[in-house]
Amino acid sequence: MISSALSRQALPSGVRSLGPSRRSSPSSSPPSYPKFPTRINQTGRCSQRSQCSLGVKSSPYPATGRRFQLEDVIEAQQFDRDILTAIFEVAREMEKIEKGTPESEVLRGHLMATLFYEPSTRTRLSFESAMKRLGGEVLTTENAREFSSAAKGETLEDTIRTVEGYADIIVMRHFESGAARRAAMTAGVPVINAGDGPGQHPTQALLDVYTIEREIGRLDGISLGLVGDLANGRTVRSLAYLIAKYQDVKIYFVSPDVVKMKDDIKEYLTSKGIEWEESADLMEVASKCDVVYQTRIQKERFGERIDLYEEARGKYIVDRKVLDVLPKHSIIMHPLPRLDEITPDVDADPRAAYFRQATNGLYIRMALLKLLLLGW
Amino acid sequence: MISSALSRQALPSGVRSLGPSRRSSPSSSPPSYPKFPTRINQTGRCSQRSQCSLGVKSSPYPATGRRFQLEDVIEAQQFDRDILTAIFEVAREMEKIEKGTPESEVLRGHLMATLFYEPSTRTRLSFESAMKRLGGEVLTTENAREFSSAAKGETLEDTIRTVEGYADIIVMRHFESGAARRAAMTAGVPVINAGDGPGQHPTQALLDVYTIEREIGRLDGISLGLVGDLANGRTVRSLAYLIAKYQDVKIYFVSPDVVKMKDDIKEYLTSKGIEWEESADLMEVASKCDVVYQTRIQKERFGERIDLYEEARGKYIVDRKVLDVLPKHSIIMHPLPRLDEITPDVDADPRAAYFRQATNGLYIRMALLKLLLLGW
Amino acid sequence: MISSALSRQALPSGVRSLGPSRRSSPSSSPPSYPKFPTRINQTGRCSQRSQCSLGVKSSPYPATGRRFQLEDVIEAQQFDRDILTAIFEVAREMEKIEKGTPESEVLRGHLMATLFYEPSTRTRLSFESAMKRLGGEVLTTENAREFSSAAKGETLEDTIRTVEGYADIIVMRHFESGAARRAAMTAGVPVINAGDGPGQHPTQALLDVYTIEREIGRLDGISLGLVGDLANGRTVRSLAYLIAKYQDVKIYFVSPDVVKMKDDIKEYLTSKGIEWEESADLMEVASKCDVVYQTRIQKERFGERIDLYEEARGKYIVDRKVLDVLPKHSIIMHPLPRLDEITPDVDADPRAAYFRQATNGLYIRMALLKLLLLGW
Repeated sequence: MISSALSRQALPSGVRSLGPSRRSSPSSSPPSYPKFPTRINQTGRCSQRSQCSLGVKSSPYPATGRRFQLEDVIEAQQFDRDILTAIFEVAREMEKIEKGTPESEVLRGHLMATLFYEPSTRTRLSFESAMKRLGGEVLTTENAREFSSAAKGETLEDTIRTVEGYADIIVMRHFESGAARRAAMTAGVPVINAGDGPGQHPTQALLDVYTIEREIGRLDGISLGLVGDLANGRTVRSLAYLIAKYQDVKIYFVSPDVVKMKDDIKEYLTSKGIEWEESADLMEVASKCDVVYQTRIQKERFGERIDLYEEARGKYIVDRKVLDVLPKHSIIMHPLPRLDEITPDVDADPRAAYFRQATNGLYIRMALLKLLLLGW
Repeated sequence: MISSALSRQALPSGVRSLGPSRRSSPSSSPPSYPKFPTRINQTGRCSQRSQCSLGVKSSPYPATGRRFQLEDVIEAQQFDRDILTAIFEVAREMEKIEKGTPESEVLRGHLMATLFYEPSTRTRLSFESAMKRLGGEVLTTENAREFSSAAKGETLEDTIRTVEGYADIIVMRHFESGAARRAAMTAGVPVINAGDGPGQHPTQALLDVYTIEREIGRLDGISLGLVGDLANGRTVRSLAYLIAKYQDVKIYFVSPDVVKMKDDIKEYLTSKGIEWEESADLMEVASKCDVVYQTRIQKERFGERIDLYEEARGKYIVDRKVLDVLPKHSIIMHPLPRLDEITPDVDADPRAAYFRQATNGLYIRMALLKLLLLGW
Repeated sequence: MISSALSRQALPSGVRSLGPSRRSSPSSSPPSYPKFPTRINQTGRCSQRSQCSLGVKSSPYPATGRRFQLEDVIEAQQFDRDILTAIFEVAREMEKIEKGTPESEVLRGHLMATLFYEPSTRTRLSFESAMKRLGGEVLTTENAREFSSAAKGETLEDTIRTVEGYADIIVMRHFESGAARRAAMTAGVPVINAGDGPGQHPTQALLDVYTIEREIGRLDGISLGLVGDLANGRTVRSLAYLIAKYQDVKIYFVSPDVVKMKDDIKEYLTSKGIEWEESADLMEVASKCDVVYQTRIQKERFGERIDLYEEARGKYIVDRKVLDVLPKHSIIMHPLPRLDEITPDVDADPRAAYFRQATNGLYIRMALLKLLLLGW
């Protein structure tokens, strides 16, 4: 049994009690039952979690030298440039891990619960592959709504308190914006937001920035064309937000009128000194971009205006003509799945980076799991 | 290959044939195929399983010193006081297991099938966590009805004979009372009942008794208030049954009139010399109980009498006023999920034991898996 | 990082890069990103996969001594007699693997994705058990249709390119004939067809032939009674196809008129010099067969003609009377699940081989996983 005086980082990896270990209040220690591991506050983390902001302004992740205290992954805004760099370094190490090596077993004995309140097979498999690539184990549920069904009426908080007894880390997908933050406030184990409704999907944002850095070799001075549904796509919104942390960035917005980038992001970019402009000419933008980031026009956003959807959908297609003008060093990205906004004949071009981008999601998630469970 | 003359207990742990090993009749050995491991009867267990009673009267689990032969977990009635004590000792050891130790890998190479004919994510995750905490592996299905769908018409027995070829132990949830017993009669591998319809949910009963022992320090002389839906809750019925095996127990039943404890349990308690009384005063009961066991009033039991449900539901709530009169050493339990029968402001009190109770389910299930797969 | 000059077979087992390793075109190597493991063509396999036939006529699995290059399992037709013999030898080794031995961990660190576009719990559990019996890990999805839902419109090819980034081998069940072949054409990792619509289910065919060889001791000179729905059962069609590779085989078709064996298989058998005849007398056939292979009459094939279904269903039942005339050395097989076409009182007879047949599926799948991931 590990003494409560030891912080998590001080423990030899792989030698921790099985019980949840980050319960908040020392005053909750029961009279007759003092050593029960679920009630020991093992870390020095903020003991009143409800007073901890997870947002941008007062980040709970202060840098101490290079040793960030990464405790949860809730939203893209929680990451600053230094922590992004540090995470990307770990992701790069993850790429090199080979089967049968000690590095491929660092999470042996650790259990991840994938608590998905709505199915997202792609995201779930990526996280589960990441956990297993590091030797960890997974508890899966894709029907987590049963935990809190209307009939039974359990709160998210109660569910989290139960699941944290079974797992060392919780990866949650939820249909409500803000659910991940609520879960993290409650949980005594780390929580990763795998998408909460129209809100955040921070690991997608991280893998996007990582892919640019990995493929182009830098983030400062990058020129970026964001194409497609910029009004509704949380992916491009988060990417614009994160890329604004770098210098001399230039962003082009290329979208049908009905799904233009909203003013909040434009104003944010301006406030950060990021140059941006809107364009209706995909060919011209492609000819001067390092990255063309294409997105899917989502039919469901158009309701009964199918005519508007069809018009928007066909307007900006990445095809071989775009490849003809795209600089040789540039790349095409897409969060996937795609419909027909990138034609299949583009796939064979080495600048088609979207499937590599998906694989980068694996490495980013491996890095986050390692950092949250073992520290730096 | 292990000789068929060796009993399971005599084998070094982790060194067993992969094939199912407890097929019943030696006469089923085929002429041309004598060494096929699925037909070898490796254990000395009752060879005609259909003649083995799993019930109370002629228990197949005779104690031989401390070495009980635990072969299946089907119903609360199969456990006597000695075996409960022994299981709890193992569960206590489970609490202390740390990652990276040999103890956390004792079930390496063992496979558990979770065969759920109706989904119960909470119970399933608890079992799967238990198996993985001991280094074992899991085959999961939440849609086991497909095995025996009306369209295909496969019997439960056929399904079990197939699944026992894939796994070393079967954890089954079923919608029909008695299904677990049928499965155990057929299976050549151990079966654990994870709830069969309105029938039994024995691991819940075990974790409840374990929690009392763990939190209060004893079971003899305990006073216990059972609150809420006592007519329909199989949890409180099983708990009353098991606690009757201890001495000087006092039970208070506190429930709305429409869901009072049924006579069969009252008569059973009386026959065992257990003192019990019914009360309409939760505050008074709470002031003299070691354990207040609250349960959820299940709306579906009231049919169209929503008025009766609403009346019953609001009648006995555990809130801060109950905490004010509850002795300092006492605890509040609940099988979860809860609705509003315990108010959230109770959670922070150290006497709120219900989330620890859920975690104890993990330790009990770890203990059972170890005992069924490796023996004592 | 493994050099791209090394073939997979030359690598020490368990020491391979985590990334997908069989991407097709070396020309897709990106300018700025030369060492990314997903783009390295590590094997000497056909680099233009779309030009590789997987079919019978130009098999991509040429034998080089005993070292077949087994890269995908798509259809029964791809196997010739030599490769069947070699696979069965490996399957026999799989039967002997014991827990806790190095053999039970040969696939440690390898990840299998079970990508099921329609649920088939029985087949899925068999594959997942096989993978875990060899120390490998599994990513499961039973709702893979979400990947390619009409709403999102992703192609199978795109899905495969994403999943191959997460797993080392893909086991796919699909509702469309030919889907497995398309997946294999795209995938940079091995693909196993776990059934694609009315098309193929090659691992079932392999386990059937393996069971005959395992139970009877030979395949040449075998006499085989195929009973039941011979028109629609892909199982019996594949079995007839494979058994035709052996010498002096005699096949009896016993079926209701409405579901007789189709001409294509009869003509194929004749062209191969295999003797076959149709019979209406199950008892007479059973008296001279080594194997009686019973199948289920599928109600859904009869549409509204319930009368024809009922007539067909009751016509040929394997019961104790059939056992009375069945030679002592013979066996009864069934692909399962069964309805009432074999009566339960047959189960206890040692000649009832159908549950052993299901277990043989485990060994065949273990063998295939080992061969596809590690080679011979």
